[in-house]
Amino acid sequence: MLIEDLLAGLPEERVVRDPDVLRGYAHDEAEWAPWELPAVLVRPHSAEEARTVVRTCLRHRVPVVTRGAGTGLSGGANALAGCVVLSTDRLTAIREINTVERLAVVQPGVVNEDLRAACAEHGLWYPPDPASSPWSTIGGNVATNAGGVCCVKYGVTRDYVLGMQVVTGTGELVRLGRRTAKGVAGYDLAGLLVGSEGTLGVITEVTVRLRAQRAPERTVAGYFGSTGAAGEAAAAIAAAGVVPSALELVDRHCLAAVDAWKNMGLSADAEVVLLGRTDAPGALGEHEAATMLDCFERAGASWAVQSSDQAEADALFAARRLAYPALERLGPVLTEDVCVPTGAVARMLGRIEAAARRHDTLIANIAHIGDGNLHPLLITPHGDEAARARAQAAFEQIIADALDLGGTVTGEHGVGLLKRPGLDRELGPVVLDMHRAVKQALDPHGILNPGKVFDERNST
Amino acid sequence: MLIEDLLAGLPEERVVRDPDVLRGYAHDEAEWAPWELPAVLVRPHSAEEARTVVRTCLRHRVPVVTRGAGTGLSGGANALAGCVVLSTDRLTAIREINTVERLAVVQPGVVNEDLRAACAEHGLWYPPDPASSPWSTIGGNVATNAGGVCCVKYGVTRDYVLGMQVVTGTGELVRLGRRTAKGVAGYDLAGLLVGSEGTLGVITEVTVRLRAQRAPERTVAGYFGSTGAAGEAAAAIAAAGVVPSALELVDRHCLAAVDAWKNMGLSADAEVVLLGRTDAPGALGEHEAATMLDCFERAGASWAVQSSDQAEADALFAARRLAYPALERLGPVLTEDVCVPTGAVARMLGRIEAAARRHDTLIANIAHIGDGNLHPLLITPHGDEAARARAQAAFEQIIADALDLGGTVTGEHGVGLLKRPGLDRELGPVVLDMHRAVKQALDPHGILNPGKVFDERNST
Repeated sequence: MLIEDLLAGLPEERVVRDPDVLRGYAHDEAEWAPWELPAVLVRPHSAEEARTVVRTCLRHRVPVVTRGAGTGLSGGANALAGCVVLSTDRLTAIREINTVERLAVVQPGVVNEDLRAACAEHGLWYPPDPASSPWSTIGGNVATNAGGVCCVKYGVTRDYVLGMQVVTGTGELVRLGRRTAKGVAGYDLAGLLVGSEGTLGVITEVTVRLRAQRAPERTVAGYFGSTGAAGEAAAAIAAAGVVPSALELVDRHCLAAVDAWKNMGLSADAEVVLLGRTDAPGALGEHEAATMLDCFERAGASWAVQSSDQAEADALFAARRLAYPALERLGPVLTEDVCVPTGAVARMLGRIEAAARRHDTLIANIAHIGDGNLHPLLITPHGDEAARARAQAAFEQIIADALDLGGTVTGEHGVGLLKRPGLDRELGPVVLDMHRAVKQALDPHGILNPGKVFDERNST
Repeated sequence: MLIEDLLAGLPEERVVRDPDVLRGYAHDEAEWAPWELPAVLVRPHSAEEARTVVRTCLRHRVPVVTRGAGTGLSGGANALAGCVVLSTDRLTAIREINTVERLAVVQPGVVNEDLRAACAEHGLWYPPDPASSPWSTIGGNVATNAGGVCCVKYGVTRDYVLGMQVVTGTGELVRLGRRTAKGVAGYDLAGLLVGSEGTLGVITEVTVRLRAQRAPERTVAGYFGSTGAAGEAAAAIAAAGVVPSALELVDRHCLAAVDAWKNMGLSADAEVVLLGRTDAPGALGEHEAATMLDCFERAGASWAVQSSDQAEADALFAARRLAYPALERLGPVLTEDVCVPTGAVARMLGRIEAAARRHDTLIANIAHIGDGNLHPLLITPHGDEAARARAQAAFEQIIADALDLGGTVTGEHGVGLLKRPGLDRELGPVVLDMHRAVKQALDPHGILNPGKVFDERNST
């Protein structure tokens, strides 16, 4: 009946029922987050077709779970039993790149790096650069308010979204936001949709702000004997007034895993590596790179260097990007995404080490240390249920520690399913009730990705 | 009964009933926006006292209109007959300036320039700089998402709000947002409150992001024979890849009015003056200033100069700031705040000239031309009702023209009462219904500044 109704409103090839295909579209990359098999996958080719999907779901009161590339790490795109999965993978047009207004208009299925490459041809730059950028889509980036490496200087996805076209929870196709540089006409509903993880609307087009392409970056690398020393180096850089264009931490577990896989000659006799970058042009860039180097050395780096060639610098950043897949070769990886005040980073890294010891769990660390966003990666051997239970306890402990230090349970990955309990603790019942009220206002029939982010049933 | 109930919950001196005082707190600076006399003015000294005000209003179903310094230009803070005006003018504490996290925590009644001065003592900078900064408050700036001169490079108030404490429409005191550099835990309700003009909550504390203090600015001034030439100069600067730290337009009506008032020797034989600034340090700043000068000259400036001394540059910017009060000496000023795509600025300036001619109205212009935000200032002689009617027609024509060119009715002043009809046209009925649903969700009893921004009654 649902499927017949979909087929009545859409070309047949948009509607996919093959169980093998459905299984591939039923979950994102979050280990351990539950998922079930959808009734059907629909791949609309236009905003109007997406609206038809939502209207059909409204008639049948069937949930619609929107997904981009499925690279999420929190279960936000995981299917519910019998739901409709709406994939944006056929909505891949870059409609406009405007050099005068410095904006781009794209469909949600455009891959992040494809947009960046298209902008580069016009001397423009779309900054948000999640590690998933070769695969993840702008729609998914917007739905999760994705971050990345350059956020420490340039902000996150929300800072670049000017406007969007959306199918609402009542099946209307509307435009929110604007194309102008400034605007305060009414509530910032476009901003509200950013990071709402598919629970408030189905995004069918996005207008993003662009910047001029920047100067080539200079890279500074430092090896440290302890996370504490690395934390000191990061704090010293901030205190020196330098805002780096990247400040990343990679620990020895990650380096060893990447090296074992790619044989890049990376393994160092150090606990952690810091990678700093500056894209300030000319003399200012030289000064910032020298300042970072000085901060590394004063914090006790066993080895620190300003990379003189781009290839070497790229290799170090490649190691950082490869850390996650390299660790996955050792077993399922449960990814944390806590973000703490920058002054609490060293303490938080110490708490993570303590959690690893206490719960006898291998925890590797990559971190956007410059803005306090840490990614402890909890690794368990395949099929070891006891190890998995210990890792789960460590996961909860780390979330509690982050909240205790004034942090948040998720800096950039989103809540999805994995961080729902943490969100409850972070927000408290009154603010959760405000979330429920907003959800009810914009999705009165509760069909948009229900059960994600928070439990929309009223608290007691 | 309402007043007795307020007095039962608050110290007596918080509750003001003197009609002369009430009159002074009954409206903002928007000419022509209607206002009525409130029943009472309450000046809470704490967030808890503000909550008491809202809870009392809830019990009596009486509207509460929150106001900062009353410098608004759209009627957003105008009182309704018999309402409670909640003034934040006793909530003036700067609670924290944190050099490590680069943030400040302030009560809403803190004056913008007071915060900026306090930050400067720590080598930090709070960028949003509305022309009202010597008087307007952070709470009002947040409620209207205030802009200013440096937005063209540094963004608007929303870009600096990390979190806030709010009394909700149900009388709860909650914290929204965060203190961390990044965070995606739940909906961006703090961002939703920014620019909501007191209709979704009463802000009792704000956490703002700060930047490091910047390099001294260089100023470039150019005199042009037509607005079209000035528009070309602005477009050329953008095309050259320069993002100035200010790019302001002041026309001869403004210069003449300032000169007549302050005798600054400003009046020039030119139609408009452009003022550009760069705060890029060192050689980059020299390059950007030289580029702006070149763009001015190529666009046909009759005179253009890079100001060699700070005093001269400050005098030019002072003339820009004094334009509004100088024009007010000529008669009531009705201020527009349209914002158009930067590529449409020259056309919009032409349309404004046409509206002035067609409706026989004196229209002076100041503009944040770098981001397309124009402030046509419609001046009518005191007591001339026919002139007022013509000016009203010109006002509506300018709004229609801005929408026609892909712009918005308000770039930074807010909707308040004056731009409600324009907002209706800009958003359309479906998006307005989304606004109504969100308002109903967060202010279920409709007591928070009702009737502002949009009509909250359901459309038919």
